Amino acid sequence: MSVSTAAADQSLCTPLPVLGRDVRVPLVTGGEVTYAALDYAASAPALQRVWDDVAAYAPYYGSVHRGAGYLSQLSTDLFENSRATVAEFLGCRDSDQVVFTRSTTDSLNLLAAALPADCQVFVFETEHHASLLPWRDARVNFLNAPRTPAQAVETLERALAARDPYGPALVCVTGASNVTGELWPVKELAAAAHAHGARIVLDAAQLAPHHPLDIAELDVDWVAFSGHKLYAPFGSGVLAGRADWLQSAEPYLAGGGASRKVARRADGGVDVEWHTTAARHEAGSPNVIGVYSIASACKALTEAGFDSLVEREQRLVTKVLEGLADVDAVRVLSLFGDDAPRVGVISFVVDGWNSSHFAAALSAEYGIGVRDGLFCAHPLVRTLLGSDPQDPGECGAPEAEPGERSLNAIRVSFGAGTPDEHVERFIGAVGELVRDGAKWNYRTEEGRCVPAV
Amino acid sequence: MSVSTAAADQSLCTPLPVLGRDVRVPLVTGGEVTYAALDYAASAPALQRVWDDVAAYAPYYGSVHRGAGYLSQLSTDLFENSRATVAEFLGCRDSDQVVFTRSTTDSLNLLAAALPADCQVFVFETEHHASLLPWRDARVNFLNAPRTPAQAVETLERALAARDPYGPALVCVTGASNVTGELWPVKELAAAAHAHGARIVLDAAQLAPHHPLDIAELDVDWVAFSGHKLYAPFGSGVLAGRADWLQSAEPYLAGGGASRKVARRADGGVDVEWHTTAARHEAGSPNVIGVYSIASACKALTEAGFDSLVEREQRLVTKVLEGLADVDAVRVLSLFGDDAPRVGVISFVVDGWNSSHFAAALSAEYGIGVRDGLFCAHPLVRTLLGSDPQDPGECGAPEAEPGERSLNAIRVSFGAGTPDEHVERFIGAVGELVRDGAKWNYRTEEGRCVPAV
Repeated sequence: MSVSTAAADQSLCTPLPVLGRDVRVPLVTGGEVTYAALDYAASAPALQRVWDDVAAYAPYYGSVHRGAGYLSQLSTDLFENSRATVAEFLGCRDSDQVVFTRSTTDSLNLLAAALPADCQVFVFETEHHASLLPWRDARVNFLNAPRTPAQAVETLERALAARDPYGPALVCVTGASNVTGELWPVKELAAAAHAHGARIVLDAAQLAPHHPLDIAELDVDWVAFSGHKLYAPFGSGVLAGRADWLQSAEPYLAGGGASRKVARRADGGVDVEWHTTAARHEAGSPNVIGVYSIASACKALTEAGFDSLVEREQRLVTKVLEGLADVDAVRVLSLFGDDAPRVGVISFVVDGWNSSHFAAALSAEYGIGVRDGLFCAHPLVRTLLGSDPQDPGECGAPEAEPGERSLNAIRVSFGAGTPDEHVERFIGAVGELVRDGAKWNYRTEEGRCVPAV
Repeated sequence: MSVSTAAADQSLCTPLPVLGRDVRVPLVTGGEVTYAALDYAASAPALQRVWDDVAAYAPYYGSVHRGAGYLSQLSTDLFENSRATVAEFLGCRDSDQVVFTRSTTDSLNLLAAALPADCQVFVFETEHHASLLPWRDARVNFLNAPRTPAQAVETLERALAARDPYGPALVCVTGASNVTGELWPVKELAAAAHAHGARIVLDAAQLAPHHPLDIAELDVDWVAFSGHKLYAPFGSGVLAGRADWLQSAEPYLAGGGASRKVARRADGGVDVEWHTTAARHEAGSPNVIGVYSIASACKALTEAGFDSLVEREQRLVTKVLEGLADVDAVRVLSLFGDDAPRVGVISFVVDGWNSSHFAAALSAEYGIGVRDGLFCAHPLVRTLLGSDPQDPGECGAPEAEPGERSLNAIRVSFGAGTPDEHVERFIGAVGELVRDGAKWNYRTEEGRCVPAV
């Protein structure tokens, strides 16, 4: 008993090893420091375990599905077992299909291509562009930003009830905002969707890396997420869920792998019989390494004890929020209020600072990597900043002059691989920059903010 | 001088090091052997150099384009420099764009989505399904299999000239057949296309890994290829060529990265301004490792001396063809005749053998990985086998009984990493199997042919 308690305590204090944890970067002020990767919400480093698994497999890489050789058969098993691992990680129902894509964006574009005729889509304006934009052939109902989770549910219910005609509908909602990190009431939104004869897809790009999720328990119809935010940056993503719409749709890509039989017709044309399994939407040679890396990450998070990872991350969230609260000039962005539960994704602005210059100073003077901009969620960030949500500002374009009030924000994000020191250094740096100013000047070069050396 | 001559001689005799070159596999007859990967046409092993580059970069992985941190800026440079490396490898014109996709299949589906209105497509029935099937919204003219390169050009010219209306047209043609390895007269087909006001895309999936190509010299409008056949199996591919159709088209995927500005409209809708660079078609976080691995492979092939790699591969082609010619029961498949130039991709059938059982025996008794089936080019293989090209046989389904005449073929393929011993072992194994029969029985299990132990 004492051993397992010690192990649990250990997991509370120790981040999971990730690649790049020892990388040192130069500072414009001289010397170098260990790089603090605090941009997990954009892309997370690979878990060491994921890298080790990929490296161990790479010499055994072979083509999947149709090769007769030993390595092809081994690779096919590895590929299909990865599908089963992901299904288990997501708590998929028996009838669900796991389709491998390249990313969350790709997953949602695939689902958009599989909508039944006349399907309406309902999406909050607060979503990432990957959730906001893919529904090009559908009538899209953009819902205004809610200010509480309950208001989100009410807004959705009202919109679904009022739809005309009362036909097929899909709701697309994020599990955790990529800007504020705030958790959305997914289970309640799913219940509302189903009560109104609609289906729902969960954009879990920011939820899956930070929080266990169970597709059956949430009762969502589909889940989409990316490997590269789940510590597996090898080019694969996932769309998992109901098979019916997917199997009724035209194949996402046309080509080998998706086609079961192809034959010339007597009239000179070509007849194609498509697969009805996940392969239907996976034409082309699959990214075996990318898919395996996702399965490896799923296993690593589960085996490390996802609940204790969440507990540890929440401790870091509290530390960052308390640290930022101590700096008067900082305003943390929130849709649902300061006490709303959130994952390790926090955006803020600093009075009197251009966000791009602030982020550049964090990098150049402290070795801290954050992100500045509109985070591919332009309407949401405009709403949060109180600027005109109809202002079509360019994604993350740094403004001209230091000192000017920023139209962008700064985002700090972290996860299972983040040591306490990184967030402590970040909090110290924010306080110091606000108090003492930057030690260097920064200018814009090729769209980036860099030290004006 | 003597040093460089020695280096050139060396490169003629020595394969480039690839991952898996020391992997040993068990034989059903007892013991184990080094695995002979002779399925390059499906997917090639990673060059050791590519793996080393990926492994060296992996700790420095970061999100590209919008991150303020050091690793994000380094990764952005690496990503965009990879684009330049690929452009150079392909001999791109200044005005060409290099778009990163997931595979050749994806590249051709992207181009299909970018066709101008009323564009007709001309494609030979002999193409891989990835070239045959993506043109779903266009009127497709399937051209009958030519029996000489000259006939291919004539057939195309006649079809283009006869098109009604004489509007926009695209020709899609392979550089080297994925079934026979035969080289197609790309330059002549491009000239024919342009003479008739059409454009042409080169499916270089099988050409790029085996032969230097120059988009400007061939005068093709686009080139598509996959990383995983070019010794870089990390989930990325390329579509390179003319920018105009691509930039006039709707973004391939809708989401972040492709969108420059997004804003709510007063009427509640959303306005989007899309990028007009390659980013337009690269929505979602890019597969940085996949893209970098392709650039690494391009550099490795160039620096090793691509011409001497070709010379070495041609020596192996001759060795295989001569070896197979010595076995009476073997018939090598060819569209353009036995002397037609080809890359290291050779398909054949063996009288009295089911191809799937033959391939299974090569694997289980000799540790040789080849492929059996219809190679995602059903109409072509049916034509070559003399079976009904309209027979919609399933891709690679092994038939029931050993000894039955096969409706599938066996394909052996190799490249820059293949040691002479692998093709020598293959030739010896083919002769031995034909002479002595298999030592084991084989049966079909889950669609695969395996030893009936």
